[in-house]
Amino acid sequence: MAQPRRSTGRRPGPTQTREAILAAAEAAFVEEGYAGATIRGVARAAGVDQALVLHYFESKDGLFAAALRTKPPLRALAEVAAQGDIHDLGERLVRRYLGLWEDPVTSTRLLAIFRAASMSASASAMVAEFIGEEVMAPLAEGIGSENAKVRATLAGSHLFGTSAARYVLRVEPLASLAGECLAAILGPVIQHYLTGDLDHAQIGSPTARVGEG
Amino acid sequence: MAQPRRSTGRRPGPTQTREAILAAAEAAFVEEGYAGATIRGVARAAGVDQALVLHYFESKDGLFAAALRTKPPLRALAEVAAQGDIHDLGERLVRRYLGLWEDPVTSTRLLAIFRAASMSASASAMVAEFIGEEVMAPLAEGIGSENAKVRATLAGSHLFGTSAARYVLRVEPLASLAGECLAAILGPVIQHYLTGDLDHAQIGSPTARVGEG
Repeated sequence: MAQPRRSTGRRPGPTQTREAILAAAEAAFVEEGYAGATIRGVARAAGVDQALVLHYFESKDGLFAAALRTKPPLRALAEVAAQGDIHDLGERLVRRYLGLWEDPVTSTRLLAIFRAASMSASASAMVAEFIGEEVMAPLAEGIGSENAKVRATLAGSHLFGTSAARYVLRVEPLASLAGECLAAILGPVIQHYLTGDLDHAQIGSPTARVGEG
Repeated sequence: MAQPRRSTGRRPGPTQTREAILAAAEAAFVEEGYAGATIRGVARAAGVDQALVLHYFESKDGLFAAALRTKPPLRALAEVAAQGDIHDLGERLVRRYLGLWEDPVTSTRLLAIFRAASMSASASAMVAEFIGEEVMAPLAEGIGSENAKVRATLAGSHLFGTSAARYVLRVEPLASLAGECLAAILGPVIQHYLTGDLDHAQIGSPTARVGEG
């Protein structure tokens, strides 16, 4: 098995090697997409043997799942939910989330995640699991009410849609709307999803198809 | 130049040939994605020479732009906006849009559009232009108020985010929420974006970055 590339005179420990592989994997997923990234390329970029990558992460899916959970930008939303008053959580979430998309480093990582989810069914399932566990569950805990998980996913999917239209598709005039203005518009709506009246009686009723009204 | 594949004894006219190429292109974009689809493959599937595809559409981008505009599922939203009362347009839009995602044919086409937009900057620009011209502009016309284009894009991006979370990522519990329940929750919010109070004073102010509040 080839030795990991050395950044110091000392032989890197397993933690450093694992971190070097994860960093290389993340760069590969960002630059080449889920389909383009390969175990071979990640091993080469990290300066280790392919077998070592497989030893730590088992497969490309395993590598993707681990990269998702490495300092995930979206965990910031769970942190926001754990602090402060629930009555202005809507606007605080909006500001923190838009901030992630306006920062080049975190927006690149978010874009890689959503590209992978849109292109690969296995990546999509991993992203959904990650978002459910690491973002929606803590957010629901912050909300605390009966339908907290429905509320969290409604708020989260609205935020996601806005960012996709504004920062990825760049649909105008949403793309060039002042950030402060957008935060002022979205804040009350996200707050409505978190703590407002959602016609509770209907939530949890059997699944029905939606036709044109 | 090879002859188009004949479905009848008569030689197909230019319109039929163009339509056959577009149908093959759409299938290619759905099945192989934007990156995977090729002029050569589309020509082979349509039974024509590559030169004929280039004659009609100039490039893969030209083919994608034309396929986007061929019986586009999202045009249904513009049709909904042109009919009926603006005061229940929110719920009518929600029902029509969710219906597009619950129909296997239209949902496959929508997924292909959004996959292409997420993976390719040129496809993304074409999708944004198409949505702006064919969906948002007629929707804004239906709204008719001063900030109608901002309103239309806020409503559209919210609908998109909900469908991405529900039908593509399948984030729970949003994915298994009853359709009727989701329509009842989303309707008033979309209506708020179309005709409600959006803190008008701020719209159009200079672009500002959004920091954590």
